[in-house]
Amino acid sequence: MPDTECGGPMTNFYIRHHALLTDAVSALKSREFWTPFPEIPSGRFYGESAREDGQAAFDRLIGHRFALPDHPETDRVGMEESPWGLPLKINYPTADASQLIEASEAVAGEWAEASPEVRVGVLLEALVRLNAMSFLMGHAVMHTTGQAFPMAFQAGGPHSQDRGLEAVAAAWVEMNATVREATWEKPQGKLASIILEKRWKLVPRGLALAIGCNTFPTWNGYPGIFASLATGNTVIVKPHPAAILPLALTVRVLREVLVEAELPADVVLLAADEPGQEMTQELVDSGAFSLIDYTGSSVFGAWLRKHAGKAQVYTEETGVNSITITGCRDFKGMCNNIAFSLSLYSGQMCTSPQNIYIPSTGIDSDEGPKSFDDVAKGIAFAVDRLLSDGERASGICGTIANPATLARVAVSRGIGRIVRDSGETGIGRSATPLLLALDGEEEGAEQEECFGPVSFFIPCESASDAIARASSIARQKGAITAALYATDQDLITEAEDAFAHAGVNLSVNLTGNIFVNQSAAFSDFHVTGANPSGNACLTDTAFVASRFRRVMIRWPKVA
Amino acid sequence: MPDTECGGPMTNFYIRHHALLTDAVSALKSREFWTPFPEIPSGRFYGESAREDGQAAFDRLIGHRFALPDHPETDRVGMEESPWGLPLKINYPTADASQLIEASEAVAGEWAEASPEVRVGVLLEALVRLNAMSFLMGHAVMHTTGQAFPMAFQAGGPHSQDRGLEAVAAAWVEMNATVREATWEKPQGKLASIILEKRWKLVPRGLALAIGCNTFPTWNGYPGIFASLATGNTVIVKPHPAAILPLALTVRVLREVLVEAELPADVVLLAADEPGQEMTQELVDSGAFSLIDYTGSSVFGAWLRKHAGKAQVYTEETGVNSITITGCRDFKGMCNNIAFSLSLYSGQMCTSPQNIYIPSTGIDSDEGPKSFDDVAKGIAFAVDRLLSDGERASGICGTIANPATLARVAVSRGIGRIVRDSGETGIGRSATPLLLALDGEEEGAEQEECFGPVSFFIPCESASDAIARASSIARQKGAITAALYATDQDLITEAEDAFAHAGVNLSVNLTGNIFVNQSAAFSDFHVTGANPSGNACLTDTAFVASRFRRVMIRWPKVA
Repeated sequence: MPDTECGGPMTNFYIRHHALLTDAVSALKSREFWTPFPEIPSGRFYGESAREDGQAAFDRLIGHRFALPDHPETDRVGMEESPWGLPLKINYPTADASQLIEASEAVAGEWAEASPEVRVGVLLEALVRLNAMSFLMGHAVMHTTGQAFPMAFQAGGPHSQDRGLEAVAAAWVEMNATVREATWEKPQGKLASIILEKRWKLVPRGLALAIGCNTFPTWNGYPGIFASLATGNTVIVKPHPAAILPLALTVRVLREVLVEAELPADVVLLAADEPGQEMTQELVDSGAFSLIDYTGSSVFGAWLRKHAGKAQVYTEETGVNSITITGCRDFKGMCNNIAFSLSLYSGQMCTSPQNIYIPSTGIDSDEGPKSFDDVAKGIAFAVDRLLSDGERASGICGTIANPATLARVAVSRGIGRIVRDSGETGIGRSATPLLLALDGEEEGAEQEECFGPVSFFIPCESASDAIARASSIARQKGAITAALYATDQDLITEAEDAFAHAGVNLSVNLTGNIFVNQSAAFSDFHVTGANPSGNACLTDTAFVASRFRRVMIRWPKVA
Repeated sequence: MPDTECGGPMTNFYIRHHALLTDAVSALKSREFWTPFPEIPSGRFYGESAREDGQAAFDRLIGHRFALPDHPETDRVGMEESPWGLPLKINYPTADASQLIEASEAVAGEWAEASPEVRVGVLLEALVRLNAMSFLMGHAVMHTTGQAFPMAFQAGGPHSQDRGLEAVAAAWVEMNATVREATWEKPQGKLASIILEKRWKLVPRGLALAIGCNTFPTWNGYPGIFASLATGNTVIVKPHPAAILPLALTVRVLREVLVEAELPADVVLLAADEPGQEMTQELVDSGAFSLIDYTGSSVFGAWLRKHAGKAQVYTEETGVNSITITGCRDFKGMCNNIAFSLSLYSGQMCTSPQNIYIPSTGIDSDEGPKSFDDVAKGIAFAVDRLLSDGERASGICGTIANPATLARVAVSRGIGRIVRDSGETGIGRSATPLLLALDGEEEGAEQEECFGPVSFFIPCESASDAIARASSIARQKGAITAALYATDQDLITEAEDAFAHAGVNLSVNLTGNIFVNQSAAFSDFHVTGANPSGNACLTDTAFVASRFRRVMIRWPKVA
């Protein structure tokens, strides 16, 4: 790492968090388990009063004007509704797209001129502060996404902070991939060498737009936001109108740290809006953005690509995730593991499995041969057992973020043979997994993403056919996760090749407390970029390297 | 670097060239002068008989069928004409776009499965062989591009090999940026840790198309070709119909090395065609490509972006390069340096200066005050002196690659006041620099690229105005190079900021044997990607990182 002038207040954050950055950079490369942000919602890690403080801070937000000091404001908006039934009634400052863009452009130069050390220092400080308020963030995520609190805390708090930190570390590595100054001495035989001094400036790409999603506003939002900021771009954060609060809190923290670092708060702006009045298209159509990060449907993704103009677009989109079952050594463990994956947040994760491919002739297991129906029923039974208690079920399934998902569950009942019907947990707007068996002979409903707690058991001619069908749909329609249960090493190798070819990460024989849905920062790359489920890989070099450019000045060395 | 199994014949090339790769990787980061490929066309470096052998090898090609063993072939094409007047009459195998695509797809899997070590080894061996045949390549480049031999040798030979090696090294660094295997152990408090084994496969993006240009087929072509190959993509090389031979020789060497490595030759294919019958659009419209590298006009660049579909497009396009003169400490040295830059290959370099901005009130110099006209005449006089001898002039200016450039010179005479008229060298289809003074009050001809030996002196209100106009046009229309002459450090700083903002590399106060046109691999990034002159920076991480993806398989560690 380069030498840094450490005197001013602006670089203190960099010095304060230098070890954190160094550790993050090491973890990026080694891909071993690492996190500085404890995932357990306990006073042991977050301070004895953290739980109560977080609850109290959340309670104070409800029904009030959300304060974003000095933010452009011509109006107040906010129609968030908690799927848990809690009235929120929070409103946020907003302004016209053109005003937000103007405000962002006005401070772009100052942010670009801040050194990478200063920028990265600000972002690390913000992440550490966000971590300290993880209980508040947990409530904010819970009541906008509908996740149960334990998941909202983990995924919306520390795991999101991990993803943000990962993006900062990746950007840092790339900004330092080559020297910033060099002396270039070219021999000229017997003549004096030609000596040039060279200096490179890191130039940001331009204005960045981060378009948030409803279900994981922070986890999916932080990588783009933090990567764009680290590389010197100003960012307008456009949350999903149903999940503003988590990103508004994030924007507030970032703006506070910026001001403390004597930098303009408007480096990060919030573009809050309401359902039916979204300003996303107006923002994009302005042509003002050079970077756009987006998580959501492929339909809007296609619109975005068409209208993005000069902007580089990073996406996570629709996909069809699968589980392929060809055999197992722990039938109960497999069924329990799959049951949890299907139930967690009622299938509303971009990593939730949808299609379950099983040979129609059944599989071998530690409990002897299992027919296609035995496997389907084994999983259904495991779901029933997992969700038998309403409160526990609610703690796993959470609620349904979007009423359209409930409607989709209702319609889906007619698609196939019901192996397990969807029910309610009894708490909030909920729906437990609907498990359907298809005849599998013709391509049907399983060929498209059916977002929410709907899964299909699909009979296949053989284990190889199951692998071929699962990997083929991933290649065609996109997939972020794939799981395989197999006892035959040749089959595993066959699957490894097939899913690699389809560009989807594969988890094999998971049982116990680790699930195909889980993607750990610093180790798992999330989305490969190699199939239609998205072009943005969290967080590889390609995700950060195009967010800035190097521009050189060179001059003859004066002897 | 990872451990490698070194037994098989396939990895021998990697072992053989390991030190070369290691040195290239170091140079990439340090940006100091480095090259393994001597730029001087001398037997001292290339062997006593190299000059004669190269000439003889070239002579044997003339008038013959170019051999590309086992290459798809349904027809023979070739209409290359030497701007030096030498009849070439070489024909090349060709096939339909669909046949070439099919042949490329047929071997894509085998190339993808070859390890990075194997692939990189093949490419390093090919580069070393290409280096050994630099005299032959010099003749091939000379008689297709119209460059004079010394430049054709340097730019088409060792400097191109440098750029190819740079791309291989950058790809290698990125392929090894993270481990390929890891054990991930997540603590579970008092319970046993969760331990997953993870393995990542590097998956190529897909078929690559490299669209060559007329003037620097190898220098501009190698980075994309070698970067795509290194990262596991098969490549179809589509040369400019007027400059097939240099890339045909390159494809032949690559295919020979591939076969020796027991890999399919069709990993690299040649898509030769003829003027008016180009197959570029048909290739692109096939939708078969995932990567497209292109050097050429912005007009075709725009078409390409529109029709590229899923393909990632890397471009170098049109631009308007400038020199800004605000003062100097060595008037003669400055004029001589600029004269050479304007004359070299008659302004047909993507780095050749076009617009020369000078305060209308003149400048200060070591020879006292110089008026606008003094500066213009000083440069014109230096060009006259440099080109006074026909043979020497020909050795610098070479010839004009495309007859359209000659026509452009003729038309341009009417645009402004002629300070120096274009003439001929007397050898081949030539044109020496046309230097025109504009009134500069309104935006005129200088606002667009005028490809070839035409430059404009533009009077400006002040030094700051000159910098502002030069950087502004770079930002709007694109520019690959900018030069500044200044004695005032504040002005230099002002220019550094202005040109950085315009995304153009700036050379300050060059005199002697180093020129703004020159871009040295391993030190100078060529094209920043930050203005319309192209999005592909040779060679930064962004140029290689998106050419492949990482796909993981993970499974519980068996105790």
